[in-house]
Amino acid sequence: MKAILNSTVGFLLILLLGCTNGPNHKQVENQDTPIDKKTNFIIIFADDLGYGDLGVYGHPTINTPNLDKMASEGQKWTSFYVGASVCTPSRAALLTGRLPVRSGMASPIARVLFPNSHNGLPKSEITLAEQLKSVDYATAIVGKWHLGHKEEFLPTNHGFDYYFGIPYSNDMDLTRELNTPGGYWDLWTEEAENLKSEDFNVPLIRNTEIVERPADQTTITRRFTEESIKFIKENKEKPFFLYLAHNLPHVPLFASEEFLGKSRRGLYGDVVEEIDHGIGRILNYLREEGLAENTIVVFTSDNGPWLPTENSGGTAGLLKDGKGSTWEGGMREPGIFWSPGKIKPKVVMDMGTTMDLFTTFSAIAGVPIPNDRVVDGLDLSPVLFEGAESPRNAVYYYRGDELYAIRVGAYKAHFITEAGYTANTRKEHHPPLLYNVEIDPSERFNISADHPDVIARIENVVKAHEAKMVKGADQLKDRG
Amino acid sequence: MKAILNSTVGFLLILLLGCTNGPNHKQVENQDTPIDKKTNFIIIFADDLGYGDLGVYGHPTINTPNLDKMASEGQKWTSFYVGASVCTPSRAALLTGRLPVRSGMASPIARVLFPNSHNGLPKSEITLAEQLKSVDYATAIVGKWHLGHKEEFLPTNHGFDYYFGIPYSNDMDLTRELNTPGGYWDLWTEEAENLKSEDFNVPLIRNTEIVERPADQTTITRRFTEESIKFIKENKEKPFFLYLAHNLPHVPLFASEEFLGKSRRGLYGDVVEEIDHGIGRILNYLREEGLAENTIVVFTSDNGPWLPTENSGGTAGLLKDGKGSTWEGGMREPGIFWSPGKIKPKVVMDMGTTMDLFTTFSAIAGVPIPNDRVVDGLDLSPVLFEGAESPRNAVYYYRGDELYAIRVGAYKAHFITEAGYTANTRKEHHPPLLYNVEIDPSERFNISADHPDVIARIENVVKAHEAKMVKGADQLKDRG
Repeated sequence: MKAILNSTVGFLLILLLGCTNGPNHKQVENQDTPIDKKTNFIIIFADDLGYGDLGVYGHPTINTPNLDKMASEGQKWTSFYVGASVCTPSRAALLTGRLPVRSGMASPIARVLFPNSHNGLPKSEITLAEQLKSVDYATAIVGKWHLGHKEEFLPTNHGFDYYFGIPYSNDMDLTRELNTPGGYWDLWTEEAENLKSEDFNVPLIRNTEIVERPADQTTITRRFTEESIKFIKENKEKPFFLYLAHNLPHVPLFASEEFLGKSRRGLYGDVVEEIDHGIGRILNYLREEGLAENTIVVFTSDNGPWLPTENSGGTAGLLKDGKGSTWEGGMREPGIFWSPGKIKPKVVMDMGTTMDLFTTFSAIAGVPIPNDRVVDGLDLSPVLFEGAESPRNAVYYYRGDELYAIRVGAYKAHFITEAGYTANTRKEHHPPLLYNVEIDPSERFNISADHPDVIARIENVVKAHEAKMVKGADQLKDRG
Repeated sequence: MKAILNSTVGFLLILLLGCTNGPNHKQVENQDTPIDKKTNFIIIFADDLGYGDLGVYGHPTINTPNLDKMASEGQKWTSFYVGASVCTPSRAALLTGRLPVRSGMASPIARVLFPNSHNGLPKSEITLAEQLKSVDYATAIVGKWHLGHKEEFLPTNHGFDYYFGIPYSNDMDLTRELNTPGGYWDLWTEEAENLKSEDFNVPLIRNTEIVERPADQTTITRRFTEESIKFIKENKEKPFFLYLAHNLPHVPLFASEEFLGKSRRGLYGDVVEEIDHGIGRILNYLREEGLAENTIVVFTSDNGPWLPTENSGGTAGLLKDGKGSTWEGGMREPGIFWSPGKIKPKVVMDMGTTMDLFTTFSAIAGVPIPNDRVVDGLDLSPVLFEGAESPRNAVYYYRGDELYAIRVGAYKAHFITEAGYTANTRKEHHPPLLYNVEIDPSERFNISADHPDVIARIENVVKAHEAKMVKGADQLKDRG
């Protein structure tokens, strides 16, 4: 009921703000940034890959030469955030440029969509694909969607010309009994090496048709790479937007023959190395076709490592906790931007988020940002092209529909903390815990007692944020 | 008494082995590796810098563009180890190519040398400087020595033509009272920003003369860089060996005006960024003078981060614990090898140690390895020049004169564990704890119960190691 009320209020507020064109409603003015309507965009999204899982982000035994090279030729962002610490809301944030709580894709009841969920990303949301389609981009998603598996919610009804992939996580629709004492978790800690694609009745979909079920996950990464290259090849005369959303290294872990047993990091490493290899193939194809200078490629992941899966999951490196939590390890990810000659090579320590891709790519393509709703994304193109300071000064850390923490500049305040996947660890903090995450990226030393001024300033930012917050009706709660 | 006995037995054994030329006594045969008697060597050694403290090893807010570039142009080693987790024994290992327990530079009584210590590196030890001097290298150490501050132990009596630096750690000879409840530790956690060079009566020595006391630590990193370049300039016609041993980022932290307040990581970051900047100057000088292709430059650090100093210390990234411990964070370090055109660019995940530099550089320079003693170093030149597999299959983790752990291949067994600087945490393990540190680099999951075969194999390696172990007489215990 509360959700419906929120939704109604939200709708009215949107109408109102649409008329007044308030301060949250940006008109794109690109006087100072290079506009090229022909710039292609590729977003490569990994699943549950942690901040510390690539060579260039410090992993000692996962070999990622292609991503390492992409980072050294382009920009390596070290404070790049996702919109939520779990899958569905993170993907909603990426594609809409909005905190998922606004679209109802973040819920106090269910963390993500399941095979028996009723809903998906509301039709009223505007995706980056729709933005770019409005100026005649060819658009495709290859990989995992997880924003609604019923036809009305599928990518082809959200701005994508083409879809090839799976509709939800690759561990869903388990067809086996869970007999072991640890139940679900034992799948990843005890049985990881013995799992088969057939243990998960995951459908593989082309546009709106199921073409394979269960999806053969042992070849899925390679097939996603090949579908991506095929899409680029078929659309290289047009501007294009490709969203390559690998469903791995989310458990269960599968790699093709060529990569199986090759990584020192075990199966998890095999999987990441196959993804890296595929990225190398894509970048090479862009180079060979003369498309590299006119294509911006971004690599990131949907959320931090799923720590309870032990060695079947990744690492957040020096960051605290992982997937599911609002500690840094849950929401800070590798963020690599590449376009030789266009993106200014740099290590960028300023903040950015996946939501900024919506706004940045819209700006570069010359598409106005919707002015009938709050869009959280900011235009990062001055950072990308000129190495300027990032316009972003704050990051909001929601868990479900609650604001747990906020980072303003170097300071992060936690109003609520809770371990990603450990029950009964929720704790409210008055005053909030305070960390300087630039000096203390591992969030070891609470300095709230020393900085009441910083806390006061942060609380004002939160107040302003909450005053404008209209939560969308919960799209995740209805199941079964 | 036991120590003296050991020393006597050791001497007899050395004589014996010297005659039989047993399997531990390598003759250098370089048929397959490029020999260039003119290859110059530069070892740049940081102090207390952790595995995770450089950009290219995953730090988000320490800006190290020069070391990052050095790594991408050369070899970035991700399993590179020191000979001990604290300063004095680690430096003894580096310079002698031997586990410090053999030279008596590792002790059950004192962890390092202090200003009131009586002894130093025994004259009977052969340093890398002495090795290279024997084939007419010009040799210099610029920076911290910490292998004996009395004249007979100083670098100029250990094979170095020239010495400019401090004889022990930069936190020694404190001239202030410790009034605060936390005593010594409060210096770094409460007073770090207010400390002055004058608070530490550290001498700065040129050859054997004190030229400044207290050493002005605010300019010391810059001066070490400049002395290094001066030495290279004066010796560029000869083959040279430069050992640049920065005494920072060991506490107390000091940076020159140009770097103070510049890093997002705070004072610790300022210090590391000044070191990085100096390395950039040295590499550029080598390039400008046409020396780069004929000079091998190595960067590493003496041991892991000193964690109880909180934000005044560094981070081991995803590795466990830090300085003083035999967990990975104590003894695994960044290891970067650079020589354009000579060193094959690669991420090397095989094992290497600082002791291997003794053997590798001796081999490259064509100097035989001493055959009257056990040398632990191995010749890494096939890895450096051809990207071959490392000859090293084991790493020994001593704390004082006790073997706490051993890594054989991917497996590490802990016979004893103990936190770096937390009292009463020592624990013996029967069977040993066992980790696969390639799959589980953070040492989270003890797998000893699953791998009795691996433990049996490792125990055989330990037996063979211990059968040949002759501990040198303790050089660290006598003080005051």
